[in-house]
Amino acid sequence: MNFLYYFDLLGTFVFAISGVLTASNKKFDVFGASVIAFVTAIGGGTLRDILIGDFPVGWINDLNYLYVVLSAIIISTIFKKYIAQLRKTLFLFDTIGIGVFTIIGIQKALLFDISPIIAVMMGTISAVFGGVLRDILCNETPLIFRKEIYATPCILGGFTYLVLSHLDVHLNIISLVTASLIISVRLFAVKKNWSLPRFN
Amino acid sequence: MNFLYYFDLLGTFVFAISGVLTASNKKFDVFGASVIAFVTAIGGGTLRDILIGDFPVGWINDLNYLYVVLSAIIISTIFKKYIAQLRKTLFLFDTIGIGVFTIIGIQKALLFDISPIIAVMMGTISAVFGGVLRDILCNETPLIFRKEIYATPCILGGFTYLVLSHLDVHLNIISLVTASLIISVRLFAVKKNWSLPRFN
Amino acid sequence: MNFLYYFDLLGTFVFAISGVLTASNKKFDVFGASVIAFVTAIGGGTLRDILIGDFPVGWINDLNYLYVVLSAIIISTIFKKYIAQLRKTLFLFDTIGIGVFTIIGIQKALLFDISPIIAVMMGTISAVFGGVLRDILCNETPLIFRKEIYATPCILGGFTYLVLSHLDVHLNIISLVTASLIISVRLFAVKKNWSLPRFN
Repeated sequence: MNFLYYFDLLGTFVFAISGVLTASNKKFDVFGASVIAFVTAIGGGTLRDILIGDFPVGWINDLNYLYVVLSAIIISTIFKKYIAQLRKTLFLFDTIGIGVFTIIGIQKALLFDISPIIAVMMGTISAVFGGVLRDILCNETPLIFRKEIYATPCILGGFTYLVLSHLDVHLNIISLVTASLIISVRLFAVKKNWSLPRFN
Repeated sequence: MNFLYYFDLLGTFVFAISGVLTASNKKFDVFGASVIAFVTAIGGGTLRDILIGDFPVGWINDLNYLYVVLSAIIISTIFKKYIAQLRKTLFLFDTIGIGVFTIIGIQKALLFDISPIIAVMMGTISAVFGGVLRDILCNETPLIFRKEIYATPCILGGFTYLVLSHLDVHLNIISLVTASLIISVRLFAVKKNWSLPRFN
Repeated sequence: MNFLYYFDLLGTFVFAISGVLTASNKKFDVFGASVIAFVTAIGGGTLRDILIGDFPVGWINDLNYLYVVLSAIIISTIFKKYIAQLRKTLFLFDTIGIGVFTIIGIQKALLFDISPIIAVMMGTISAVFGGVLRDILCNETPLIFRKEIYATPCILGGFTYLVLSHLDVHLNIISLVTASLIISVRLFAVKKNWSLPRFN
């Protein structure tokens, strides 16, 4: 499923750019911004690999992830002004990113013989924990715990993946349907300004 | 030692409830509260498993932990008002929780041929690091670094475990004595409002 | 290369003292200060071991690290006043520490057949992430993301290590040259008050 791999790299690229943008708001230096870019982009997948026990973690054995993150850092440094104007495009790619990360996370977990419900968790962790680690390193309360519909589409998509998988649908179709669902729910939720109920 | 397993689930349940209560003070949404509940309940054991190298980490292979945490989230959502009135009961169960978590952590570390003094550390980490990770995710300075006698009973209990173990006392007796010691010291310390000396 | 091992213990000692000093500014109690000392001293190497998959992580199998950290905690408690006056000496040893940690991190990564560029990252992580984790546990934005030239000498040193290694220079010479370079760049950068450019 080579196309998933390229979308994974695309998601990594966009997540890294979002990391640089966050770091620039915190007045970090070039090193700090690079760490944030890296953690945002590969943090979720790294945590998933650690929990299921796949060592060394993914990006250590495939230098493409490092190169993609470094490119994102360089490009967002040079084209700083343009990137601020590309928020809508970035948001779209970010949404594609969480869709792809969720699917890859689930697939990897199932490959490790992990039970389906935990595999959905692993997919969601892959998609959202990079952003959580970014916020912790920036000394902020994680955004997705309070404001945005972000993990919910991943969880819904994850269970859709399991159902289709159970029905013996072809893997490419499953991936396409799951990703489309995650992306549509997320776009729709943001457009409608949906949020989850609070505890208080 | 089946009874330890059920107390472990009970401790997980109570820790998850305390996570939801903390999250509700931070105005997190349902997803954020669920993450905090999960991290509080299984964070300590997860860190222990990662450090000693037991993969996949414990709760991934035993769905009961996930079900217990989900139940705690649902129950504390429905019975929010009642739970606020149960603080004393929750505190007692939380204290039982750290006792059990310490013992299980030590036993697991010893099973991995880890030296006894590090095993006591692993027991203490199992008991207290869920709360530390909860506070970090909530962007708070970890409570137990400043105010409460929390880890001290675990450390004392841990060394008691080692001594009794050395004297070839039966494992059930060791667990019972260690847990009772941890629970009594903690209850007594809170009652007497004890605290550790500060650095300043 | 036994002398590297002793410098590693020395670095661990000094990092632990810096952890205690940070904790004392935050009014932590003895337990909190000990956790911070431990995390500062062994956090970077622990993260490196987890990412490359070396379990149990290093300090679990070699009690000397625990003893060195405990000594640092005790000594910095007793000689609190003197240590405040030793800032320059501590700074020098801290700088030796990052030099040694970088080299040991690279060597370990290469031993695990990790690609050279990632090995430089692992060396840098070994040297700087203890301080990052310390700041996160203290609920502070990591210092090295904003103010200091800290990771840059490690990265420069790391690439020097790779080049010399490629030229088949003797390992002892490589270590000596790399450490000297890291230490000089860091001392010079602090003296000249250098900092990296910011994002804003």
